[in-house]
Amino acid sequence: MRTSIATVSLGGSLTEKLTAAARAGFDGVEIFENDLLASPLTPEEIRTRCADLGLTIDLYQPMRDIEAVPEEVFAGNLRRARHKFELMRRLGTDTVLVCSSVSPLAVDDDALATGQLRRLADLAQEFGIRVAYEALAWGRHVNTYDHAWRIVEAAGHPALGTCLDSFHILARGSDPKGIEDIPGEKIFFLQLADAPLMAMDVLQWSRHYRCFPGQGGLDVTGLLRHVVAAGYQGPLSLEVFNDVFRQADAGPTAVDAHRSLLVLQEAAGLAEPPAPVVPTGVAFVELVTPDAEPPAALLGALGFARTARHRSKPVDLWERGEARVLVNTGPGARREGTCLAAVGLESPDPTGAARRAEALLAPVLPRRRAPEDAPLDAVAAPDGTELFFVATDHQALPNWRADFEDLPPGRTTPRAADTVTRIDHLALTQPWHEFDEAVLFHRSVLGLHAQDSVDVADPYGLHRSRAVTNADGSVRIALGVGPAPTDDTARAQHIALATDDVVAAARAFRAAGGRLLAVPANYHDDLAARYGFGDGELETYRDLGILYDRDEQGGEFRHCYTETVGRVFFELVQRDAGYRGYGAANAPVRMAAQHIGRTVR
Amino acid sequence: MRTSIATVSLGGSLTEKLTAAARAGFDGVEIFENDLLASPLTPEEIRTRCADLGLTIDLYQPMRDIEAVPEEVFAGNLRRARHKFELMRRLGTDTVLVCSSVSPLAVDDDALATGQLRRLADLAQEFGIRVAYEALAWGRHVNTYDHAWRIVEAAGHPALGTCLDSFHILARGSDPKGIEDIPGEKIFFLQLADAPLMAMDVLQWSRHYRCFPGQGGLDVTGLLRHVVAAGYQGPLSLEVFNDVFRQADAGPTAVDAHRSLLVLQEAAGLAEPPAPVVPTGVAFVELVTPDAEPPAALLGALGFARTARHRSKPVDLWERGEARVLVNTGPGARREGTCLAAVGLESPDPTGAARRAEALLAPVLPRRRAPEDAPLDAVAAPDGTELFFVATDHQALPNWRADFEDLPPGRTTPRAADTVTRIDHLALTQPWHEFDEAVLFHRSVLGLHAQDSVDVADPYGLHRSRAVTNADGSVRIALGVGPAPTDDTARAQHIALATDDVVAAARAFRAAGGRLLAVPANYHDDLAARYGFGDGELETYRDLGILYDRDEQGGEFRHCYTETVGRVFFELVQRDAGYRGYGAANAPVRMAAQHIGRTVR
Repeated sequence: MRTSIATVSLGGSLTEKLTAAARAGFDGVEIFENDLLASPLTPEEIRTRCADLGLTIDLYQPMRDIEAVPEEVFAGNLRRARHKFELMRRLGTDTVLVCSSVSPLAVDDDALATGQLRRLADLAQEFGIRVAYEALAWGRHVNTYDHAWRIVEAAGHPALGTCLDSFHILARGSDPKGIEDIPGEKIFFLQLADAPLMAMDVLQWSRHYRCFPGQGGLDVTGLLRHVVAAGYQGPLSLEVFNDVFRQADAGPTAVDAHRSLLVLQEAAGLAEPPAPVVPTGVAFVELVTPDAEPPAALLGALGFARTARHRSKPVDLWERGEARVLVNTGPGARREGTCLAAVGLESPDPTGAARRAEALLAPVLPRRRAPEDAPLDAVAAPDGTELFFVATDHQALPNWRADFEDLPPGRTTPRAADTVTRIDHLALTQPWHEFDEAVLFHRSVLGLHAQDSVDVADPYGLHRSRAVTNADGSVRIALGVGPAPTDDTARAQHIALATDDVVAAARAFRAAGGRLLAVPANYHDDLAARYGFGDGELETYRDLGILYDRDEQGGEFRHCYTETVGRVFFELVQRDAGYRGYGAANAPVRMAAQHIGRTVR
Repeated sequence: MRTSIATVSLGGSLTEKLTAAARAGFDGVEIFENDLLASPLTPEEIRTRCADLGLTIDLYQPMRDIEAVPEEVFAGNLRRARHKFELMRRLGTDTVLVCSSVSPLAVDDDALATGQLRRLADLAQEFGIRVAYEALAWGRHVNTYDHAWRIVEAAGHPALGTCLDSFHILARGSDPKGIEDIPGEKIFFLQLADAPLMAMDVLQWSRHYRCFPGQGGLDVTGLLRHVVAAGYQGPLSLEVFNDVFRQADAGPTAVDAHRSLLVLQEAAGLAEPPAPVVPTGVAFVELVTPDAEPPAALLGALGFARTARHRSKPVDLWERGEARVLVNTGPGARREGTCLAAVGLESPDPTGAARRAEALLAPVLPRRRAPEDAPLDAVAAPDGTELFFVATDHQALPNWRADFEDLPPGRTTPRAADTVTRIDHLALTQPWHEFDEAVLFHRSVLGLHAQDSVDVADPYGLHRSRAVTNADGSVRIALGVGPAPTDDTARAQHIALATDDVVAAARAFRAAGGRLLAVPANYHDDLAARYGFGDGELETYRDLGILYDRDEQGGEFRHCYTETVGRVFFELVQRDAGYRGYGAANAPVRMAAQHIGRTVR
């Protein structure tokens, strides 16, 4: 179906918004009145700009407080409408949104509303314009879609139809099934928005917290199915009021928005993009650094061995068990020092995974490689992390490992006993404006499942974290966001290594000269108050800075943290009895300890 | 009464919080358990640190999910409590907060709750500790203060009392009158928090949006009166969970917090700080600039005359009617260029005003002056703006004007006809973390009245604005806050000049070479749709970039904006028929136009 977006959903000037919408692949836009009023372009110039960008103007919105008012007030409203219809003619758009009245002057009289909307439609018809009447969830007398439709039906005017808005319908808990009773050709427009489930005044909820479909908790897919079943033929249009989107760059937000519509259409059975290819593991992570020594020292102490070097690039491969870390000292090195720049995801079908990503608007990265290197498919995640779809040691697929030449044994670091087996999870702090976008990206593009969002109190503000995983937990990425955009440049990233014996792994790390994060004694005193431990167990945790968590099903989690290099630190984690979390309860203590910055050898 | 603050109310490490609380003048603190767990200090060290800072530890909090549970669970809870009582002995605090249970294991059985709390109190008594039992608003079975009190009363144990929390009581709409039926000595603790009135899930509301008394909409004063009438003798303690405070520097937040308690005690008749001396006008504003030429050119075009120069400092006085602007090229000049650094407030009693400010913890500024200068009383507002309490041409009071030497007529700029009469209002963008603080400061320290808060959509994010005024509107300050802390350094400041003929004033400004902000034609087209104007009126507004607003009582507002110099621009405003607003409806168009930055001569 055609896709459209209301200009109010994006930040910036009107022309920035139009450009972003066009670049993201939208077919059309709704022009929000305030965006037009604030633009220095004439309506004719806006029309031309849209045409140049390949955008239709699908809707002008909104006209407010029109109907069910005393006659003298309505006369003024008609005068105002005539001005707007003239403006719409100049803009070249033929549909106007009329919201149900919130005016204290409006009376509870459907017959009056019907008659006045019919007269408005008469006037609109003279201009070749259609009026789409929508029930606001907080409309004074008309606040449900079926009520708005009864009025439209009673008016029986060809230039009067209804506009459906998923937020207004679902936020009130209306049953969307009744939409199928509306003739499709009388549904003049469909606006789509999702929202997180919040017990909140509906007006505030709508004005500040709407989000794109799939980012919230409303069943927008189910609603869309009903609208399509009714025979609706118009565009799918996003109308989202969101405090964060307003501050974000329009470009990435528009891409995020368009992706949400593609995923929505897939979910509703209206489109078939390439199927997701769920990754089956983490093949490697790649650190980029201006100085290889600090990460090398850390990896060495963690028992990693430097085993190979890339044929054509200054990239070393470090391995321990199935955990692999690339250390790249090439031109990607950033100002903030060592950071995690790329993740290799094991894929049963790397090309299919990349096709899926591309269809869902993930930026496909150019393959900068020497002729002899394996062709690697890669896309950029919203935070800029490069995601490579790879197959390690697979006969039929190009092998990234073959691009690396084994180092002579003399140059490799000795490998420690295999208490560390693989990468357990990655934790990546996202840019402030792109948290919901990042979650939807990982769910839809990679086919991962999103766990619940948790709040975590850092001493200097509240963090939010949401993990995405595959079914068996072999890929786990905890997406996080800080309290405010002030320290976006210092976004922490961490790599958690799975071990079946965190005590042994921590001791080996320290014995090899590694420094572990010091955890306050008060924390371990509290553990003693809450849990029973075996003889000496707690003293060991105290000594090594090991944190402990237990879930409601009795699953256990023991974990500790290394010192930080650049933006990156490592965690050693031991999961027992089916523990599926990430120790969120311990995160405040860990973050406070990192602010203090004391590590022990 | 003694004042106290929960460490969770402030951002930073535990020691930062303690230091900030002590510096702000609090007598004691509540130690929030998570702050202790995350601290590298032992309980004994925390005790010593508090003693060194002159702080008592009034409460340890919270213990959760203790009561009304199956016996085997309660046994574990008692074990946990024993650990915490030992910890409290080390800390040197004798009162613990126990919140009503939210556990799914808790049963609705007051007799069971009573019995178990009595056993907890028995244990506490061994340690010399008192248990303060509090009803959480979202407690599973106990969620009102009177229910918690019935349980405490039934237990009849000397070591068991109740804790009252204004948020939990008022957020549920409980009538606080019943507090007077509780014997004062059984009210072991009083926690105070306010919150903006929001229709919202009470747990979310409590965890993220609490604020200090006087910053929200709850009647904390009324509640306090009932608690005092009951005979409560303990401290007044602030417990505030707020996402913004968590990110703010602990120092200013603690001062803000302590001020709120001083104002609360005054309102409840428990303290008598010096009475507010409400300012009666704006004597002057002071611009600080590294280059006097740009503001001088702007002031000249606005019809201001340079009339005098300070005897001992590089400060020029510009005047037009009763509007006065000082231009200071002294050492206060800041990196961002011209900015508004000080406001002179006409005061019937400058010394009294300063005494009030000092009593309410406003930083009193040192008087840097030459021996012959008038002694001026000044304090710093939360955004750093210096507020001078002055008397212009008052016989009995020191006269700031006398510090200025009139320039010989030849050096003064000619004065335009007096369409501009005085400063109508100032609009000052506040640092992101200090908006609520700024409003409370201006209300309490200056005795101004706060109008409603309004949201304004800038193209790049939502702004919030709240005006504070005196009764006759001769002092009006619109406090604003941007969408996020990213552009705190570029905070706009503007000076609105009152005129009885904005058209004449704007024309005179342009004729004198001034540049007015260009307003999009679409805006004026919309005015035509909404209002009827006289012949040629709208064309004049279009030409001059004049904006128009009308309030519900028929009051009218016409205004236009000059170019910006540094952080500062001017507005010319004409109020008719009792208009009391600030043209908020036009602010989105104005801000968009300023982003475009086009001005016309």
